[in-house]
Amino acid sequence: MPQAPSTDVDPAFASVAIVGLGLIGGSIALGIRERCGPCRLYGVDSDAVLAHALGDGVIDHGCGSVTDLPDVELIVLAAPVRQNTDLLAQLASRPRPAVVTDVGGTKRSIVAASRALPSTLSFVGGHPLGGGERGGLAFARPDLFVHRPWILTPTAGTDLAAVARVARLATTLGGRVTEMSPDDHDRVMAYVSHLPQLMASVLMQTVGDAARNEGLRLAGRGLVDTTRLASSPANVWRDICATNADAIGHALDEAIGHLQDLRRALDDGEVIDRVFGTAARWRAELLKERE
Amino acid sequence: MPQAPSTDVDPAFASVAIVGLGLIGGSIALGIRERCGPCRLYGVDSDAVLAHALGDGVIDHGCGSVTDLPDVELIVLAAPVRQNTDLLAQLASRPRPAVVTDVGGTKRSIVAASRALPSTLSFVGGHPLGGGERGGLAFARPDLFVHRPWILTPTAGTDLAAVARVARLATTLGGRVTEMSPDDHDRVMAYVSHLPQLMASVLMQTVGDAARNEGLRLAGRGLVDTTRLASSPANVWRDICATNADAIGHALDEAIGHLQDLRRALDDGEVIDRVFGTAARWRAELLKERE
Repeated sequence: MPQAPSTDVDPAFASVAIVGLGLIGGSIALGIRERCGPCRLYGVDSDAVLAHALGDGVIDHGCGSVTDLPDVELIVLAAPVRQNTDLLAQLASRPRPAVVTDVGGTKRSIVAASRALPSTLSFVGGHPLGGGERGGLAFARPDLFVHRPWILTPTAGTDLAAVARVARLATTLGGRVTEMSPDDHDRVMAYVSHLPQLMASVLMQTVGDAARNEGLRLAGRGLVDTTRLASSPANVWRDICATNADAIGHALDEAIGHLQDLRRALDDGEVIDRVFGTAARWRAELLKERE
Repeated sequence: MPQAPSTDVDPAFASVAIVGLGLIGGSIALGIRERCGPCRLYGVDSDAVLAHALGDGVIDHGCGSVTDLPDVELIVLAAPVRQNTDLLAQLASRPRPAVVTDVGGTKRSIVAASRALPSTLSFVGGHPLGGGERGGLAFARPDLFVHRPWILTPTAGTDLAAVARVARLATTLGGRVTEMSPDDHDRVMAYVSHLPQLMASVLMQTVGDAARNEGLRLAGRGLVDTTRLASSPANVWRDICATNADAIGHALDEAIGHLQDLRRALDDGEVIDRVFGTAARWRAELLKERE
């Protein structure tokens, strides 16, 4: 049974526009519907997505572009990273004040771009770590962020009242708010998010090209789990790779170095023991951190 | 409710010894108990494992070594690959005929070693592709092999009657029997099984060493799935890597090459699109092959 709206919760924002109604944007809309007090919800997306979102009651009103958006208290940019940065520039001419946040997987580029905004727009960089195997509004869920980290990346110039309001919304949606600098965010994500994605994609590419369908028929559950991320949408990752190329490059260099070491030592039991021992220890820590 | 023993099933073997009561060996024992007709089950393992297996009724009798095994119709070698090869040598002096099979993840080395066996012992190379996150008898399940490939690798000299009996047992345990040459097996497994394992271990090693516990706390489900294999036991993989080093080396070289290409093109959207497009297509094929 869906949780009843918590009418006694102070809504952090009485009106919210969500730009990009994919898995993350759609889940934020559904989460606000289910967990916040009354809130007018606007969506910006293609006509087809808006029709779906309006039909399902995910949003109250649809807009074809951010320049058509009426006055709202919060604008959430939930498109791929570089589109969000372009959208920020389009918002710069809005006459009325608003808090603006985003949900993109890299933070340095959009936080840098936000410095050009007028003082009426308070930008708070954000990155909720929900996400799933399938993208798109059809897979959006109000509980996508429950018990998951929701990183905010305020800097010296960030409006602290805006940070507090975005943090309140993130917490109400079930997220665990963590603050860090855009630099730290991008460096850590290069390892815990971007490297796994790229290795999963390259693994699936390599295995598929060599084994073809006849070989894939003989794959165990290991390959299926290890390549789950390989279904991720290229358009999201094009932007993440381009805006975090330096940090991802370092992470890739380390992984490639380890693979080369292993390749040279396949018949050296001590090297295998060391790699597997280290990996198993970190894997146990990873599971512990998620308890 | 456990499935009742199918008493009308012709038991392929009336007595079976399983050498190594881990996840695979233990699951074969449990599968025989549940799905075959009456069968005397012997286990060979350490005293502690035998006590557990006898206590739970997984086996009828325990032995400390294969040289102590009484007359049985089938011997299943379910230790790491190179131990299985050593065990084959110990079996060579058995006076009574038996069918011998194994469950190891590489096939060329043990099939080559089996050529030294006396003609009374009929060896059939085998590789059931069950398996799971956790090893050991405690995680053994009678249905581990259901709907999963069970590869047999007969060669020109293999006793066809023995192949048929092992295939019958594998089918009774729910496996889908596929025959291929040891060469083909090892080449395909280098891609669909060994490469995913090594990339998962190296990924976990790289991410853990860089991100430490503070970073792992910020990981999403993607890292958890992608590194599930990183808990695999080193002793099993030491043997697989050593006995399939050439094929694994080729697979690693290809993956490393793709990672290097990607690393040089992180800001090139066309390269990202190509890698992600190829990976997503093969991932869809992988899921289709498992339907």
